Amino acid sequence: MIYDLIIIGAGPAGMTAALFAARYKMNFIVLSKNNGGYMATADSIENYPGFERISGAELAEKMANQIKKLKVEIKNEIVREIVKKDDIFEVHANKIYHAKFVIIASGTERQKLGLENEDKFIGKGVSYCATCDAPFFKNKTVCVIGGSNSAVMSALLLEKYAKKIYLIYRGSELRADPIRVHELKKNKRIVIILNSDIKNIKGKEKVEEIILKNGKKIKTDGIFVEIGSIPDVILTQSLKKEGVKTDDKGYIFVDETKETNVKGLFAAGDCTVKQLRQIITACADGAIAAANVYQNLKTHIRIKSK
Amino acid sequence: MIYDLIIIGAGPAGMTAALFAARYKMNFIVLSKNNGGYMATADSIENYPGFERISGAELAEKMANQIKKLKVEIKNEIVREIVKKDDIFEVHANKIYHAKFVIIASGTERQKLGLENEDKFIGKGVSYCATCDAPFFKNKTVCVIGGSNSAVMSALLLEKYAKKIYLIYRGSELRADPIRVHELKKNKRIVIILNSDIKNIKGKEKVEEIILKNGKKIKTDGIFVEIGSIPDVILTQSLKKEGVKTDDKGYIFVDETKETNVKGLFAAGDCTVKQLRQIITACADGAIAAANVYQNLKTHIRIKSK
Repeated sequence: MIYDLIIIGAGPAGMTAALFAARYKMNFIVLSKNNGGYMATADSIENYPGFERISGAELAEKMANQIKKLKVEIKNEIVREIVKKDDIFEVHANKIYHAKFVIIASGTERQKLGLENEDKFIGKGVSYCATCDAPFFKNKTVCVIGGSNSAVMSALLLEKYAKKIYLIYRGSELRADPIRVHELKKNKRIVIILNSDIKNIKGKEKVEEIILKNGKKIKTDGIFVEIGSIPDVILTQSLKKEGVKTDDKGYIFVDETKETNVKGLFAAGDCTVKQLRQIITACADGAIAAANVYQNLKTHIRIKSK
Repeated sequence: MIYDLIIIGAGPAGMTAALFAARYKMNFIVLSKNNGGYMATADSIENYPGFERISGAELAEKMANQIKKLKVEIKNEIVREIVKKDDIFEVHANKIYHAKFVIIASGTERQKLGLENEDKFIGKGVSYCATCDAPFFKNKTVCVIGGSNSAVMSALLLEKYAKKIYLIYRGSELRADPIRVHELKKNKRIVIILNSDIKNIKGKEKVEEIILKNGKKIKTDGIFVEIGSIPDVILTQSLKKEGVKTDDKGYIFVDETKETNVKGLFAAGDCTVKQLRQIITACADGAIAAANVYQNLKTHIRIKSK
């Protein structure tokens, strides 16, 4: 059984690739470790055209239902390796799947602080998902680490629960959109600390205190790490073995058709080197990749039938 | 009064650029001859992620309401000329507006057959919009000219009204998505004529007959022209005068930031040279253009304040 296409990931890029692939009547499957990808963790999305305000989980569900109506098969499996053999891709998940084309839309994973005792405190004060864990910090003090949109949105969400929020960012100016920074600064329970970084976490069972690089100590019950994301580390290693060009962090280089330097292997969305990582641009990437796979497939078939 | 940005067009690209520009808190306006652009004429959209099925008019309204909530100002004006003077753009519409940056998201206009008596029959059988005019052809015979998704969708829509539909395409294979071609072929009242083109229109007051290039005559009440689109002709001429690089048809070349070869002048959506012209990709273009204008604007301000 050789599929026309395997799509890896079911975030906005993967689901849109699937939407277009289904409309092109390709024979394909989607392999994904979760539904909705990073989008599904967003508390509130306000910049996806067509929805004034929608939760990430809800938008993910809408996209999933849309492709399920077209009988798209999504298998809940983790892809660990992609190997190209004689123009056919072997995709290693729970078993080995074969396909003529692959679209990698595996998104990104949250980056850790890299502190010695960070792992020890995961679930004991350290969190990488404010949407998931904010309600556990009712009337508590929390620190958010980072200065991006995600960091500011996490701080704003935590403000609904916690009594005091520190936003700690190593830069001199928050990187988030001005509309969000504006909202943040209006809020008196949120303290912004710039030009500062976390050095150490202290606590017996749970997080009790953080120490900044300038020596300043802050008593806190929670640490929300919002310092960005990187592509799936295991998949990146496999791609490097196959000679797929990526940047230092593992983001995949693609051309304007979303094809990588390996013929037949496409990538779309947040896992690629790109201008702007947003849901709307991830969706567009997925559509472009699927359209180009379809073009390639038609040529492929024509050559074979001659 | 010099705006940060003027966005030309309020289709998916223009409205998404406006959505992002508003969130970046830029000082800007949108100039557009209509709301929703070409999207608004679509009878049914099924490949925009998040909506299983929605009319173009409804999706346009949702996007318009979303940006109106952010107090975006849309002026209903036609832009005829863009002139760059001393790093500032003059945008000629009902009056002359000034801006540091411009995003052209003016989409495309419907292409005509180029037949001698075509204009004479407009509104008298010749139409460029099945969504607008299909209901006028109840129990009549109509011809659709073209082989793209638009042509096939027009034929399928007309089938709900007309008693007989001819789809006439000069190519040997329809270019539309297989899912649509499949639906088309199931329908016995639609006759597909390939490798054929229209040569002449006959009729006294209204369209009565068409003559194909092979001499074959078809009695018909209507001709729906679906042979593609080209960018706004008047705007294209003005851009050429300013040295903006376009292809033969007037589609604008942009780099990956959506900037044209003229510094500060951006373009997004269907009016640009691009891979895939879809609502989702137009939206993404608009977002990318606005994000890059914002980056340029921040640099601009920093340089000025030094």
